[in-house]
Amino acid sequence: MAQKAEYTLRELADAVGGKVVGDPGRVVRGVSTLESASEDEISFCVGPKYLPLLEKTRAGAVVVPEMLRVSKNAPDRIAVGKIDEAFNALTEFFIPDYAKKMSGIHPSAAIDPRAELGEGVAAGPCVVVQSGAKVGARSRILAGSYVGHDVKMGEDCLIHPNVTILDRVIIGSRVVIHSGTVIGSDGFGFTRETPGHPKQRQLGTVELGDDVEIGACCAIDRARLEKTVIGRGTKLDNLVHVAHNVRIGENCFIVAQVGIAGSAVIGNEVILAGQAGVDGHITLADGVQVAGRGGVTKSLSEAGKYAGCPARRKSDEDRRVALTWRLPKILERIKELEMRVARIEKKAENDRKPHSD
Amino acid sequence: MAQKAEYTLRELADAVGGKVVGDPGRVVRGVSTLESASEDEISFCVGPKYLPLLEKTRAGAVVVPEMLRVSKNAPDRIAVGKIDEAFNALTEFFIPDYAKKMSGIHPSAAIDPRAELGEGVAAGPCVVVQSGAKVGARSRILAGSYVGHDVKMGEDCLIHPNVTILDRVIIGSRVVIHSGTVIGSDGFGFTRETPGHPKQRQLGTVELGDDVEIGACCAIDRARLEKTVIGRGTKLDNLVHVAHNVRIGENCFIVAQVGIAGSAVIGNEVILAGQAGVDGHITLADGVQVAGRGGVTKSLSEAGKYAGCPARRKSDEDRRVALTWRLPKILERIKELEMRVARIEKKAENDRKPHSD
Amino acid sequence: MAQKAEYTLRELADAVGGKVVGDPGRVVRGVSTLESASEDEISFCVGPKYLPLLEKTRAGAVVVPEMLRVSKNAPDRIAVGKIDEAFNALTEFFIPDYAKKMSGIHPSAAIDPRAELGEGVAAGPCVVVQSGAKVGARSRILAGSYVGHDVKMGEDCLIHPNVTILDRVIIGSRVVIHSGTVIGSDGFGFTRETPGHPKQRQLGTVELGDDVEIGACCAIDRARLEKTVIGRGTKLDNLVHVAHNVRIGENCFIVAQVGIAGSAVIGNEVILAGQAGVDGHITLADGVQVAGRGGVTKSLSEAGKYAGCPARRKSDEDRRVALTWRLPKILERIKELEMRVARIEKKAENDRKPHSD
Repeated sequence: MAQKAEYTLRELADAVGGKVVGDPGRVVRGVSTLESASEDEISFCVGPKYLPLLEKTRAGAVVVPEMLRVSKNAPDRIAVGKIDEAFNALTEFFIPDYAKKMSGIHPSAAIDPRAELGEGVAAGPCVVVQSGAKVGARSRILAGSYVGHDVKMGEDCLIHPNVTILDRVIIGSRVVIHSGTVIGSDGFGFTRETPGHPKQRQLGTVELGDDVEIGACCAIDRARLEKTVIGRGTKLDNLVHVAHNVRIGENCFIVAQVGIAGSAVIGNEVILAGQAGVDGHITLADGVQVAGRGGVTKSLSEAGKYAGCPARRKSDEDRRVALTWRLPKILERIKELEMRVARIEKKAENDRKPHSD
Repeated sequence: MAQKAEYTLRELADAVGGKVVGDPGRVVRGVSTLESASEDEISFCVGPKYLPLLEKTRAGAVVVPEMLRVSKNAPDRIAVGKIDEAFNALTEFFIPDYAKKMSGIHPSAAIDPRAELGEGVAAGPCVVVQSGAKVGARSRILAGSYVGHDVKMGEDCLIHPNVTILDRVIIGSRVVIHSGTVIGSDGFGFTRETPGHPKQRQLGTVELGDDVEIGACCAIDRARLEKTVIGRGTKLDNLVHVAHNVRIGENCFIVAQVGIAGSAVIGNEVILAGQAGVDGHITLADGVQVAGRGGVTKSLSEAGKYAGCPARRKSDEDRRVALTWRLPKILERIKELEMRVARIEKKAENDRKPHSD
Repeated sequence: MAQKAEYTLRELADAVGGKVVGDPGRVVRGVSTLESASEDEISFCVGPKYLPLLEKTRAGAVVVPEMLRVSKNAPDRIAVGKIDEAFNALTEFFIPDYAKKMSGIHPSAAIDPRAELGEGVAAGPCVVVQSGAKVGARSRILAGSYVGHDVKMGEDCLIHPNVTILDRVIIGSRVVIHSGTVIGSDGFGFTRETPGHPKQRQLGTVELGDDVEIGACCAIDRARLEKTVIGRGTKLDNLVHVAHNVRIGENCFIVAQVGIAGSAVIGNEVILAGQAGVDGHITLADGVQVAGRGGVTKSLSEAGKYAGCPARRKSDEDRRVALTWRLPKILERIKELEMRVARIEKKAENDRKPHSD
């Protein structure tokens, strides 16, 4: 991992409000995992599960939760209250966050004079911002990204390179959108009954709540007339498809390659694991969790784990699948029964015959 | 929904050749759904199914099919012959279609002097059109899109932002391509038998018929030597994969996240629902409809509904799946039979034993 | 197929070290398939399987492997040692490879002065190369592509238009990346236990080995701390998702729409067919082959063919599925047994009754 600078353990501990155990003057020049760190690097032991790795690490220093009991011969360390926050803060010392540092509007960016950019907005090379768009303070739009007409974007958003945000889309604050993703493409609406299947204009929009994060190469379609909604705090992984008029609640996790068909309504705190699918016009209650590859074809009104296609309670589905694996045995038992019954029948037949002796 | 202007009901009715029932002087300032419209907005009641919503709407005016029987206390309205056309025409009064209005070549576009642009072609910021490309009259290429060497594009096409159309691709007229999509990427062809798996050059192209629409983030590979073809009027949703040498007929609907493997041949009026897959080198007859997540592994020579993976007639597949859900009951019945047979056998055994009394 | 030039059979044979059988002065003006070629075109008969097409072809000339026995009345031909190499070499005479010919840096490209471009590097319009990036000799970066800060790219790479390569990604030599693809997007990492699900910074990178090829619209996430790795010679098709910390071995084929979850380890020479999925934190041995739509949920420690979801040995899975199709028959056999057993029981009951005669 690239080493950018050097710091003493004391300096790093102070930066995260941690406590040094060991030599505060130890010099740290990089950050890595417990398995890979070398003597001038710092690493992280986030919980008891990783204590065996801590035993063997060659890291010169480690960061540990203050509650974690560590053996005496562990490396020099920083004990912290919140290990995840310390991780995020300390790694920034060594691994540059170029997006955070960018500033200003690149000369090759095409910003329409009728767009409004808030204070400290940054735009990279070949960025396009169209008329009527409003971008909130400190939002950063990286190279090649497109912000359409009348888009409204909140503050502190991070739009990675080559993202496409189409006309009238509404984006909250602190939203992160990864490269290749398209927000506000037309819903898949055609009049099947009419010859030539004329297109139904898709006039609604997409609204992303605060703190939403959308992965790479996702496609989120605009509603036909109103809004496709992704609620505050919900995170999408890569290559996810969200059709028109879908409403996703808050704090959901939608894992890679999931597809959600038109007008589906997803509650809060829902988890859809990888490659799952949700049919159109159905409702998933708060707290539903669908296993990978699950295909939900009917509304689910209770929280809990579901699996299979069509999806059912995970425990039922697991049992069903397990039983199909017992089919060879089941068939043998049927054959065995057939033989035994035949034997009984034959014997009865013989018993009934007149004795000829 | 953004209000851009105001019109009287009479003006709107005249624009679509409709008939006003009620106050022709009523002022309309926006458009919305029956559920959400306010008193200065117009809405649409497209058929009898929506009459209950019409009863409750607060919309100041509505558009209805002239055949639809509406209660007397319905809002002021415009009766029209074709409700879908009226929808498309009237909504344009209130919701701007920026792509339709764009014109000219943006100064940041890189148009090769050896490319030919027809009359009225528009190109947005950072558009690239390479040498030998021919773009038909009135086609619009939005920001950041790429049109490769020797591409032939018809008239009145709409290429959304950040689309990639690679060398020699052939595109009909009135074709719509959504953002993030790639037309003419190399087919997945390597010589597996040779060490290092050398690449087989992919020299063919892709041909999209007139009135084709391709969703966001799709990948359509070029043929090895000839053409990957998508027939006139066929519509693709988002994140669809079409491999090299595939031929898709006319007026098909290919729903989101479908994958079609190399050299498959799809008939006309075929529907592949979301996340379905079609194996390579097989043929689907006209009118085949594959359910969501269906996986077609063999040619289907008759129209009709198919489901499952491997896909079979939908009715058969549904029955098969239903029976697997009865496996617990089936197992109980087998156990019961085993007990009864054992009882019979035991009794017969006892009967046969010599009495020792 | 566009004809760019004309050559004699002798000239073409010399170019690939082949031997002319027939008229060396025959003029060739294009290349096509055996089915479609016309009299002034050359075609390829790569093996005995295609001899029936060779019988019927109207091609003026053909290229054949020198080992192939061809009928006397076959067209004039070039016999070659390696048919695939001859195909790649000869087709270049007729179908221009514009990417190969491109040179120089387009004036609209934004190349940071702190980036290092090797000798002969070419960059198309609107390409962005950020500070600290190093691009090896003769690599070509096509229009609209983004090369982030500190990226390291080897020699002779081909980056198609609108590709996104994010900060610190490491790319070998002769790597090909197709349009719409994103390398180095953030892994999907959030702390689920903490309210608000704070993001875990994704600080690692992605490393693509030499001769890797990545299809269109793929998303390859960076590791949290170390590297997501795709080994030398491995080929990915379109719309593939590779999550953070995944390690894929050498010479694998990952077919379209496959998803590989976080920290999975894939061996060498593995084949994952279309729409397959691999769960996180599991290991697939060298030589594993997963059928299309297969979903691997547990580590597979032996080479061989697997199928189904959850994936098992393909032969077992095929048998399981076949047996589920026999469930209607199985149910009939159970009913039949139940009737026979009831008959036996009834008869035994009757026999036991005291005779009242």
